[in-house]
Amino acid sequence: MASKKNGSKNDVDARLAGLCPNQTKSFDLKDCKPNAKPFSIGDKNTDRAAVQTLATEIDVLQNLFYADRRYKLLIVLQGLDTSGKDGTVRAVFKETSPLGVRCVGWKAPSENERAYDYLWRIHQHVPASGEVMVFNRSHYEDVLVPVVNGWIDASQTAQRYAQINDFERMLTETGTVILKFMLHISPEEQRERLQERLDDPAKRWKFDLGDLEVRKQWKDYDRAYDALLKATSTEHAPWIVVPADSKTHRNLMIATLVRDRLASLNLRYPEDDPRLKGLIVE
Amino acid sequence: MASKKNGSKNDVDARLAGLCPNQTKSFDLKDCKPNAKPFSIGDKNTDRAAVQTLATEIDVLQNLFYADRRYKLLIVLQGLDTSGKDGTVRAVFKETSPLGVRCVGWKAPSENERAYDYLWRIHQHVPASGEVMVFNRSHYEDVLVPVVNGWIDASQTAQRYAQINDFERMLTETGTVILKFMLHISPEEQRERLQERLDDPAKRWKFDLGDLEVRKQWKDYDRAYDALLKATSTEHAPWIVVPADSKTHRNLMIATLVRDRLASLNLRYPEDDPRLKGLIVE
Repeated sequence: MASKKNGSKNDVDARLAGLCPNQTKSFDLKDCKPNAKPFSIGDKNTDRAAVQTLATEIDVLQNLFYADRRYKLLIVLQGLDTSGKDGTVRAVFKETSPLGVRCVGWKAPSENERAYDYLWRIHQHVPASGEVMVFNRSHYEDVLVPVVNGWIDASQTAQRYAQINDFERMLTETGTVILKFMLHISPEEQRERLQERLDDPAKRWKFDLGDLEVRKQWKDYDRAYDALLKATSTEHAPWIVVPADSKTHRNLMIATLVRDRLASLNLRYPEDDPRLKGLIVE
Repeated sequence: MASKKNGSKNDVDARLAGLCPNQTKSFDLKDCKPNAKPFSIGDKNTDRAAVQTLATEIDVLQNLFYADRRYKLLIVLQGLDTSGKDGTVRAVFKETSPLGVRCVGWKAPSENERAYDYLWRIHQHVPASGEVMVFNRSHYEDVLVPVVNGWIDASQTAQRYAQINDFERMLTETGTVILKFMLHISPEEQRERLQERLDDPAKRWKFDLGDLEVRKQWKDYDRAYDALLKATSTEHAPWIVVPADSKTHRNLMIATLVRDRLASLNLRYPEDDPRLKGLIVE
């Protein structure tokens, strides 16, 4: 169902274009509405069912992706606290075996990690052939936190953008497909979600008072995101801004784009070993 | 449902005891019937529904396990080709987010890995606090393949058993819960599954002619498994032999034991930060 209604390349391009003008080139984050639902195909139940269908398709495609071995897939999820990175992983890969998708949740670098360049630890976790890797946060934190806090200046920041673009170009030139999603929520939606986290005893342990400090820097993060999206949305690894005030829409949009990208690769099983033909196991 | 029928510790112990005499101490693999179904609670549909219920419970417990942070969980899956290691991971963690469970599928060591001791690469992938790690094959391959092929002698093998026991004792003493499952299938069942793999175009690429060579060494592997089970089933990390001719029973048994072990830890959320009480997000 999702396949039919949401499937054609032109249709998806139109939805993306309607979302943020020139989504893959230069665009302003302020023109992207966190509560937009360009990928919605009906009411919430219809959209949820479509996510489930897409998750099943992604499971089939992941198996084929692994068998094919020509590509590596790197999915980068960025977004402020409560923007739904964890929820996205759960929904999009709901039907995929844990054997078929790896996730790394990037935290602030340790003392040992800080002794290396900031891409050192990232490089160790890029996907191998046939692998699907999800980065929950990523090297983009290194052009967010230090920028907002003034630890690096404009010229160092520009240098990092260029280094990241070079790094990602190398990865794509050596067989990695990179999908970068920026989960875009409104400050109002974040307030509700943080309050919910505080009020639910099963979620309260996730609450970090530091999150409120980051929330106070909302405008600074907005500016830093806007700048990095402009600087690092490249031909080989474009950014996709995902309106994320609606969890269902966020899942539907990302699942659609992951499914479409996998489907576009024309994946195939390796050729049969001719010795296997008609073989009977004894 | 599964909780009630399959839940009490005594009940599970009785099922294990009926399966292989002295399952956790010294036992003979030949006394363990691959087609036994000690954990079955009804017909196939009932058992399947129970696996699904258990998978949902395991998801909830994994969240709590992560929040609690006092333990690490290492699940080791061993078994001959087609014994169902991949299928087990998919079924048992069907409802768990990919963020909550990591898997490593161990292959023959690379040239670089062989330049180190055989536990070197293993140690790098043990779970951290709050993590669930599944080993699909493991360091136990190092007391199987070299033994069957005569690359190490009896005294070297005995030394490795002792090294593995020491290594696992250290892990358990530092907070790791280790669950080791040996998926036990019959040669007849393996023949059927290998033939099925050959006959299905979507599975044929997984077929390796080398698998047939290993199949010819069935008795040698049986002997090597029997010896390692006797030597490395310790108080701190006992082996559990899982009759695996029935996929549903295999899933049900392993999901039951994983759920029970997690439930036995009396996991809890960390204590609330008193500063969070009554806090309103602005």
